[in-house]
Amino acid sequence: MEKKKQIVILGAGFGGVYAALELEKQFKKMRDEYELILVSRDNYFTYQPMLSEVVGGSLGILDSVSALHKLLKYTKLYVREISEIDIANQSVVLSPNFSHTDLEIHYDHLIIALGNVTDFRYSPGGLHEHALPFKFLADAFKLRNRIIDVIETAAFEEDPVVRKHLLTFVVGGGGFSGVEIVAEINDLARKLTKEYKTLDAKELRVVLIHSKDRLVDREMPARLGIYAAKLLQKRGVEIIFNKHLVSATPNEAILEDGTRIPAKTIVSSVPSNPNPLVEALPFEKVKDRILTDEFLQVKGTKNIWAIGDCASIPLPAKKGFYCPPTAQFAVREGRAVARNIKAQITQKPLVKFNFKELGMMAVLGHRRAIAELFGFIRMSGFIAWVFWRSAYWAKLPGFNRKMKVLVSWILDIFVPQESVQLKAEIKSGITHLHYLAGDIVFHKGDVGDFLYIIVQGSVEVLETKENAEKRIAVLEKGEFFGEIALLNEKKRIATIRCITDCELIAIRRQDFHILVTNFGDLREQFKQTEKKRLEKNKSLLKETFFMDVGDIAKGLDEDLPDSKTG
Amino acid sequence: MEKKKQIVILGAGFGGVYAALELEKQFKKMRDEYELILVSRDNYFTYQPMLSEVVGGSLGILDSVSALHKLLKYTKLYVREISEIDIANQSVVLSPNFSHTDLEIHYDHLIIALGNVTDFRYSPGGLHEHALPFKFLADAFKLRNRIIDVIETAAFEEDPVVRKHLLTFVVGGGGFSGVEIVAEINDLARKLTKEYKTLDAKELRVVLIHSKDRLVDREMPARLGIYAAKLLQKRGVEIIFNKHLVSATPNEAILEDGTRIPAKTIVSSVPSNPNPLVEALPFEKVKDRILTDEFLQVKGTKNIWAIGDCASIPLPAKKGFYCPPTAQFAVREGRAVARNIKAQITQKPLVKFNFKELGMMAVLGHRRAIAELFGFIRMSGFIAWVFWRSAYWAKLPGFNRKMKVLVSWILDIFVPQESVQLKAEIKSGITHLHYLAGDIVFHKGDVGDFLYIIVQGSVEVLETKENAEKRIAVLEKGEFFGEIALLNEKKRIATIRCITDCELIAIRRQDFHILVTNFGDLREQFKQTEKKRLEKNKSLLKETFFMDVGDIAKGLDEDLPDSKTG
Repeated sequence: MEKKKQIVILGAGFGGVYAALELEKQFKKMRDEYELILVSRDNYFTYQPMLSEVVGGSLGILDSVSALHKLLKYTKLYVREISEIDIANQSVVLSPNFSHTDLEIHYDHLIIALGNVTDFRYSPGGLHEHALPFKFLADAFKLRNRIIDVIETAAFEEDPVVRKHLLTFVVGGGGFSGVEIVAEINDLARKLTKEYKTLDAKELRVVLIHSKDRLVDREMPARLGIYAAKLLQKRGVEIIFNKHLVSATPNEAILEDGTRIPAKTIVSSVPSNPNPLVEALPFEKVKDRILTDEFLQVKGTKNIWAIGDCASIPLPAKKGFYCPPTAQFAVREGRAVARNIKAQITQKPLVKFNFKELGMMAVLGHRRAIAELFGFIRMSGFIAWVFWRSAYWAKLPGFNRKMKVLVSWILDIFVPQESVQLKAEIKSGITHLHYLAGDIVFHKGDVGDFLYIIVQGSVEVLETKENAEKRIAVLEKGEFFGEIALLNEKKRIATIRCITDCELIAIRRQDFHILVTNFGDLREQFKQTEKKRLEKNKSLLKETFFMDVGDIAKGLDEDLPDSKTG
Repeated sequence: MEKKKQIVILGAGFGGVYAALELEKQFKKMRDEYELILVSRDNYFTYQPMLSEVVGGSLGILDSVSALHKLLKYTKLYVREISEIDIANQSVVLSPNFSHTDLEIHYDHLIIALGNVTDFRYSPGGLHEHALPFKFLADAFKLRNRIIDVIETAAFEEDPVVRKHLLTFVVGGGGFSGVEIVAEINDLARKLTKEYKTLDAKELRVVLIHSKDRLVDREMPARLGIYAAKLLQKRGVEIIFNKHLVSATPNEAILEDGTRIPAKTIVSSVPSNPNPLVEALPFEKVKDRILTDEFLQVKGTKNIWAIGDCASIPLPAKKGFYCPPTAQFAVREGRAVARNIKAQITQKPLVKFNFKELGMMAVLGHRRAIAELFGFIRMSGFIAWVFWRSAYWAKLPGFNRKMKVLVSWILDIFVPQESVQLKAEIKSGITHLHYLAGDIVFHKGDVGDFLYIIVQGSVEVLETKENAEKRIAVLEKGEFFGEIALLNEKKRIATIRCITDCELIAIRRQDFHILVTNFGDLREQFKQTEKKRLEKNKSLLKETFFMDVGDIAKGLDEDLPDSKTG
């Protein structure tokens, strides 16, 4: 038997999945010759238009997604991360799962449908560290849990400043996604607030920050944007127009004009960056997207195709323009690329991609939506919402999924989902933090839960006594602090305040202990640093500080195993 | 207004929640004088008898739990970890959430209902690191995701050895919990296997290991234990009697006689240890549980009570015996303690705790169960299963919960839950690993994904060439390996094999990079170690190794910021 030729699809968003579905159809009679392969990060297809409903709870966690192997019966599915696309060798390398060996897949035809990534790498300070993204199912899940967590914590928090931080929610970006998220956050937060006698809806603050003077300005006509703003404001959402969300700290959202909004929960819907895998490809790009011809084929290749949000595909209607990164286009591109691959293989002429958008819709929570169809029908309010639900429901893949979602919706009317907060997530041991000049990292007397390393900037160590404060040391880039309370399981013995804007790394107490116990020379470093600090600051430090440090040095010498042997 | 007196309940299992429910009733007319406070790790009450159904998918993820603030309308709820119980000061200290300050709560009456913890600390090698526990909702959620993950990975894995590892599931302990879990794993794994054309049910191996010669020997009469074993075996579960699961590595389960079962998924239902908070209390204990009198009051105290799995409560029927740690008892103890606190406050006589078990049931998956009622009615099979479902359903707290579960069950008949694998969990940066002598940690050519530190034992570094191998170094406790591939983003250049049993710490590539980039002296250490290794092994190491190390040292000097300043 001859080896089958392989058609490999990278990515299982709307583009990738609809390409696979159409390929299964097109190659039905050629299954002995062609193998279809789909590589996906997750084992399911996320129906993104319904993701925001997961946050609000009108859909169950898994109702907005479909298992890929159920949708695609004749496609080989690899649920793996892609580590490399090797154009020269016509292969794709997949990261290991349950082993240490990676997997190389040869391709005869390659469809790149990797979309873009929510990635704050290019964003200014703090958004990467402190803003929540909103793109994948896991993001919706985390956001829901976060909202429940802050509101429950606030319910029995007595410090009014902390309460304010907990009960403020900031969303950056007033496009489709931002508007939908802020509506769901607002609905859920207000619903939850009512359930606690100790909370008052007036304490809640839900803020949407948009860089233009009108919401959904890129996607919708003026009238609908204005309607959306009015509706959200009526429900209690505060909208700040003509401002960018530029930065964030663990406690605040910061706008370009320096406005600071104290908030523990900051969502940014803005940053969509090219997938690093796409960036690395040696193809011509337009706006960081792979340039294709009108047949969806990557310029200068014979067997490589690109679709969806990672591709710049010439828009047939408007010369010099490219197809917008929407689900509607991705679905049609997926189908078209499958037919063109079939055509190429069977030596028939390729067909130019052609599609005109049907319409745009956004849901505003609470049974309200806005919609524009065929460029001239405009709807808003409840009617638009019914239309929105019906349209998306009809497009849900698979009968089972349709049934489940319908039942979820009906159930939601009678027995709404409870605000259970599933803490399945383990926090990573090492986190990045961004602070502004003047911010307090911790106060004297706080619990010693993290060790901090300064990556950028400088901080001052303050000794506070009856409202007076004295600077006892300045720490800079590469130095660390907070180890004293960690090593002694005691409270912080000094306050740390940022002198400049700071980038910090925080290591959890538990992980710090593991490292110090097992890394011989790291331990040595801590001892040396403590000695130096002591000598330098002798005159300024009070007795307890000396004792603490003495204890550490002693503890380190006696208790820990010597790793220098061997 | 006078300050309210505080009745504080620690723990929201069956005991704590039913105590709170009964206290709300008992203190209905005294709400101005008494404040009820419940401290819980999660914001929900887990209905544990139904937890195994979450694994199999006949219940949705959140259907087996109820939001506590919905169940308990008049109780102040703190969703926090407890960091200390301070008997001398009549207070409980809670860990911070969204801040660095902890919270101290005064109590006038304290109910300790902390249960026990699934904790492999006292377990022999490897169970802590590699066996999955099964007690909380998050455990059920993780186990379900794991089963889906290994089966999907196996579906397209071509190496028969890896396939075998992926498709073997081992459960340790044949009590109630173990029997229920193995039944659900077996059902789910077989169902999933059918969905993949590339998998054969014959490849699946589901193994239950029990230390006695009969299942559920502590809980059920012989006949039902034998029935359970036969039923499970008929469905393809392999049962190993009279053996303990004693150890585990990333790839194998190990029995006391040295039998090794290659398996990626190992579940241990056995280890239930006392909560560390309970251990630390200065009270008299029996079998690590707090000894109470027959009124549920902790010996030697006036205002402290203990119930549920963390308490040793004299069994009224049998002198010298204590109440068993079951949900049935915990519920009654919770109610009784609430009534006794009320009695004490109103100066009425306390009532002795008295309850006789109604019966025991276990579900065996696939619509089969075993049950014993009132000590003489014994049922098995479908009838027992219907009985099981009805009984537990009737006891579900709240009408909403009842409705949701009923709908879930009905839906499950027509549109079964899809095997979506939700990767909401982020792996912690630092993990512990246990290996046996002779195990390979990684092979030459593997992907460099972790740095390893040796905590116990020693390993050998092997240079392999055309089936021949040569030992080029021995590394021992406190030393590390694996950094070369990590620093160069290259494959492993040597194989690592354990000489003795080993305890290792693995640090993910990403976290390793963060540490090395920002910790000046750690970087120094790597450079020094590399130099030493080079000098020592010069004659043995091949050219590429030299070059690699040279590159690292160079890279470290040039690219990274100097953290010594400041």
